[in-house]
Amino acid sequence: MIIVLKRNATKEKIEELKGQLMQQGVAVNTWVGQHETVLGLIGDTTAIDIDYIGAQDIVESVKRVQEPYKKANRKFHPSNTVITLPSGEKIGDGELVLMAGPCSVESKEQIIEVAIRIKKAGAKFLRGGAFKPRTSPYSFQGLHEDGIELLLAAKKETGLPIVTEIMSKEDIHLFKDVDIIQVGARNMQNFELLKELGKLEKPILLKRGLANTIEEFLMSAEYILAGGNEQVILCERGIRTFETYTRNTMDISAVPILKKLSHLPIIVDPSHAAGIPWLVEPLAMAGVATGADGIMIEVHNNPKKALSDGAQSLTPDQFDEIAKRIFKAKKAFDSCKKN
Amino acid sequence: MIIVLKRNATKEKIEELKGQLMQQGVAVNTWVGQHETVLGLIGDTTAIDIDYIGAQDIVESVKRVQEPYKKANRKFHPSNTVITLPSGEKIGDGELVLMAGPCSVESKEQIIEVAIRIKKAGAKFLRGGAFKPRTSPYSFQGLHEDGIELLLAAKKETGLPIVTEIMSKEDIHLFKDVDIIQVGARNMQNFELLKELGKLEKPILLKRGLANTIEEFLMSAEYILAGGNEQVILCERGIRTFETYTRNTMDISAVPILKKLSHLPIIVDPSHAAGIPWLVEPLAMAGVATGADGIMIEVHNNPKKALSDGAQSLTPDQFDEIAKRIFKAKKAFDSCKKN
Amino acid sequence: MIIVLKRNATKEKIEELKGQLMQQGVAVNTWVGQHETVLGLIGDTTAIDIDYIGAQDIVESVKRVQEPYKKANRKFHPSNTVITLPSGEKIGDGELVLMAGPCSVESKEQIIEVAIRIKKAGAKFLRGGAFKPRTSPYSFQGLHEDGIELLLAAKKETGLPIVTEIMSKEDIHLFKDVDIIQVGARNMQNFELLKELGKLEKPILLKRGLANTIEEFLMSAEYILAGGNEQVILCERGIRTFETYTRNTMDISAVPILKKLSHLPIIVDPSHAAGIPWLVEPLAMAGVATGADGIMIEVHNNPKKALSDGAQSLTPDQFDEIAKRIFKAKKAFDSCKKN
Amino acid sequence: MIIVLKRNATKEKIEELKGQLMQQGVAVNTWVGQHETVLGLIGDTTAIDIDYIGAQDIVESVKRVQEPYKKANRKFHPSNTVITLPSGEKIGDGELVLMAGPCSVESKEQIIEVAIRIKKAGAKFLRGGAFKPRTSPYSFQGLHEDGIELLLAAKKETGLPIVTEIMSKEDIHLFKDVDIIQVGARNMQNFELLKELGKLEKPILLKRGLANTIEEFLMSAEYILAGGNEQVILCERGIRTFETYTRNTMDISAVPILKKLSHLPIIVDPSHAAGIPWLVEPLAMAGVATGADGIMIEVHNNPKKALSDGAQSLTPDQFDEIAKRIFKAKKAFDSCKKN
Repeated sequence: MIIVLKRNATKEKIEELKGQLMQQGVAVNTWVGQHETVLGLIGDTTAIDIDYIGAQDIVESVKRVQEPYKKANRKFHPSNTVITLPSGEKIGDGELVLMAGPCSVESKEQIIEVAIRIKKAGAKFLRGGAFKPRTSPYSFQGLHEDGIELLLAAKKETGLPIVTEIMSKEDIHLFKDVDIIQVGARNMQNFELLKELGKLEKPILLKRGLANTIEEFLMSAEYILAGGNEQVILCERGIRTFETYTRNTMDISAVPILKKLSHLPIIVDPSHAAGIPWLVEPLAMAGVATGADGIMIEVHNNPKKALSDGAQSLTPDQFDEIAKRIFKAKKAFDSCKKN
Repeated sequence: MIIVLKRNATKEKIEELKGQLMQQGVAVNTWVGQHETVLGLIGDTTAIDIDYIGAQDIVESVKRVQEPYKKANRKFHPSNTVITLPSGEKIGDGELVLMAGPCSVESKEQIIEVAIRIKKAGAKFLRGGAFKPRTSPYSFQGLHEDGIELLLAAKKETGLPIVTEIMSKEDIHLFKDVDIIQVGARNMQNFELLKELGKLEKPILLKRGLANTIEEFLMSAEYILAGGNEQVILCERGIRTFETYTRNTMDISAVPILKKLSHLPIIVDPSHAAGIPWLVEPLAMAGVATGADGIMIEVHNNPKKALSDGAQSLTPDQFDEIAKRIFKAKKAFDSCKKN
Repeated sequence: MIIVLKRNATKEKIEELKGQLMQQGVAVNTWVGQHETVLGLIGDTTAIDIDYIGAQDIVESVKRVQEPYKKANRKFHPSNTVITLPSGEKIGDGELVLMAGPCSVESKEQIIEVAIRIKKAGAKFLRGGAFKPRTSPYSFQGLHEDGIELLLAAKKETGLPIVTEIMSKEDIHLFKDVDIIQVGARNMQNFELLKELGKLEKPILLKRGLANTIEEFLMSAEYILAGGNEQVILCERGIRTFETYTRNTMDISAVPILKKLSHLPIIVDPSHAAGIPWLVEPLAMAGVATGADGIMIEVHNNPKKALSDGAQSLTPDQFDEIAKRIFKAKKAFDSCKKN
Repeated sequence: MIIVLKRNATKEKIEELKGQLMQQGVAVNTWVGQHETVLGLIGDTTAIDIDYIGAQDIVESVKRVQEPYKKANRKFHPSNTVITLPSGEKIGDGELVLMAGPCSVESKEQIIEVAIRIKKAGAKFLRGGAFKPRTSPYSFQGLHEDGIELLLAAKKETGLPIVTEIMSKEDIHLFKDVDIIQVGARNMQNFELLKELGKLEKPILLKRGLANTIEEFLMSAEYILAGGNEQVILCERGIRTFETYTRNTMDISAVPILKKLSHLPIIVDPSHAAGIPWLVEPLAMAGVATGADGIMIEVHNNPKKALSDGAQSLTPDQFDEIAKRIFKAKKAFDSCKKN
């Protein structure tokens, strides 16, 4: 951490600040420039509060040199994290994993039909929403525990492990049999929820918030990891920008950046990123090309009748076609990779 | 609601869609253009899901004509909502209300000292954080219930009603004696929490999310109002943009816009918007000039020792000076207003 | 075009507005809703000024149904535009074109060395800056006409057509022998320049502005096309967002969207999008995967000594390796494409 | 300037880099941390290219300590710049200056009528567009030199100095008699134009680009100042964000920030910032409250017939009322200011 002091900082105040910093276990190096004095901290600065430093009246600006996350950091954990489910499925082992299913679970027929179809097409996980975050209080809010029951029924029928979103830590007991718990974009910084999930021994699929930086994303993963749960899957699903053609702007650079900064697996969600069904395929291909470990795609047996997000869902037939091309592209792309 | 259909929409499909829409209680008007057919819905479209319509394969685009919020809408509630606390304080009655206090409650001495000082300076509410949303799991997370106890002690000492943030619906019971419950920017779309707060009879101070539009902000207020709690205070606290000089960009236009679209009171939080203490005063003045009902300012008895957000806090002495100028400006500005 | 009128619009005012609209050559359809009256315009609305309509005091909001661009619109020009240089090179014919070279032309040795190396690696165009838009007036501003001379010398040596940026319409005469004239992101809405370029018979490579929507991008292309020059190449080079890890955020969705909305070829510039050399390869791959017609990559014979943007340049050796993998990936992805 | 080196930087490479830096006239201080080595540069780093440094393969990151602008910097020019026109009007002397007029000059009657009316209301400058940057090539593009003639006629009639926008350096000769030349937001980084304007002895009103940071804004001012023209007026006119209710988001914080960082006068343009006539007054008031030196407002004698931007124009009667309240508010706010 490098601290630039104000021009008018007195010797006494500088010594006082240095004393405070050294009490936090770091060594302090002083460098006197022409107009400024700069302090450099040596040692573990993860726990030092950058805001606290910035609040000192003699401080002009502060800059971290080390990343503020540790457990999510590839520097301290060079090999890829591979997540293995009790049923054997893996995420992050080099194979491309498809997760598919409807935005909302609506009925037993629906979810089982979709599950059978996506399994046939090569998907390894069934995703579906039981608790739905909706902008309007007047929109369908999901079937809640009944929705989870229906997902479990589809799992029983097909063997596909299930992924579904949690919206409140109070509901954690309902997710006992869920294979992967998803944290949605709006809850990426619901820290109370993240702390609770950190106590579980279950994979957590953490979506990037729509206005969160890559560093904040990794800090939210750090919350879960710091609690002891090392099974975190990151998911890029688009960020909010000025562009209005798409619902969000898929930040495709996030895939290789997260791969470099962290050891955690990363998947992309082209359905939510764009909100447009015909963009799902090219954005999925971009995910493959940048090294994503998986793709999550919305599939509905009858998009026109979907109770939520039908606008961006594919039909099982469309998914079938696209999945084929995605797997083919993955193989092709792997053969072009840098060794 | 206006629905533009695709060029290739067949008569049968158009009739089918019109039938579905009419079943939802609206009348449908058809208009055949040169290249497109357009449907216009007449009646209450609040409950019609715009995504659902957009998912129909013959639909090119959909546009709302009416706002999707009702209870928060000034059109259906022309007079200003004035929130009155049992202890008599009012928000939204034309007077300017100051809320002040530290980012985090840290000790009894701290909170009581701050409370006494801000009361003397004219603040009507004591704000302080007991549950703190922090980006890093390694930062101080607040004193939790102990923090609320200390706030209540300061209230006992000074008579100032207290405002403090909730982070999880599970904690609602701890907020029984809190006067105003704050929902932070990161939880603006924590819909499960909003629904619970809708069941209370207590004012809720709802902060705008850092990447949320004004419409989404009002939809989140609608969640609380729809539950039966009509005491919602809106708070503009800066949005995320590309500018890095300030922590966030205060969207000052939101103040007059929210006043026009809604009847709810609106306050501004210049401390969080900028993250820079010397910007608090000019941004507070901008709030006064645009008609805000209140200003929330961070005040710490010793910003340099603050456990969170000290960087943007004012000292009690600074607040004293600024509060005087703010009240003077309010009076001056009121005398220039359009009648 | 659909015009929603205000509730208080009088019959007289509505008739007056309708009269004005019909004078502009469109038919007007009136639809009276429960709370609103809506007008629908039938005919060619390209020339109707949406701002003008919005200025009428009885107008609540206006929405275009047709895109505001015509010549750039695939609806009116279904087949892909293929740009063919006099020397035979093509852009947009299905083959992937690489353009490479240094940010700034610095010396004869430099540009010829780079040209020879990139040609060997498979690049079809040499790019290099003679006029450089620099944020600081104290930074190197390019060699100007001398830079163009050096590019032409490199062209003579290698046969590679050259691409270089123009910054002012006054300089057009200097670009007589340049094969493709580039308009940089900062000049995307320099309409005076675009109009002049519309008079040429030479391909124009138009970069997307860093805060411009896809629609505005196509409107700028329309300026050139409307002038009579039909050889426009679009280039996505990243947009400005809140994310600070990369210099800009590559909007990869823009590639398939522009392909759908327009018939013009589209290339991507991963060097400027990210500003980080190790991101060039994955972002180039994302371009290939989404169907880009070309990739533009910064290559410098000695990035450490580059007078501008060295930070993001590749060495010729690195380019050699990456180009091989890009061509391999293009072939592979083509074999997976939807027919 | 502080340079953080990569972990693997060898002693030889570090010495090589230090040598290069010292050749650029700065002293270099080395500090060896636990994991990193950091170099601190002492002396004038304005001319050192931060990108060049970042391109060195042993460099992890670079941070400026000093601002990259010098002539625009208040540190080196503590007193406010006051711009005085030959006709005696001043900008930046503590009085609030109103500039008003139509978006486009359309006819002699129009511009003279507007000029007379705004002068009576207290405006000190007539603004009007002769060259109009329009998104669509099919929109009205301004009257060009004829428009400037009409502005000069209105000046003759009323004595009001005129402000009008330049779009290309080729047109500079047409602006000989113009009092203040405006550079629009889209040309804020048209560096060739800025360089030419730096050679004049005439005030330049520089608008902030819609996606440009405050630092970039000051760097563009620096271009003009560095050329020898010290008469630059800054203008905040809204930045592009995700919010769609307003055309742009007025960044009100920019006013006090620019006042602190620079000595140049700053005005605000609420008409363009919002694009909504009823927001002009509250945003103008916010400008007054934050210390702006002037306000620029669009006024049209017949907004409904305006050829451009009518939607956001005020009528002369509306301007009359608003100007009164603005002047009253200025006086009132001045009396509340910190001394």
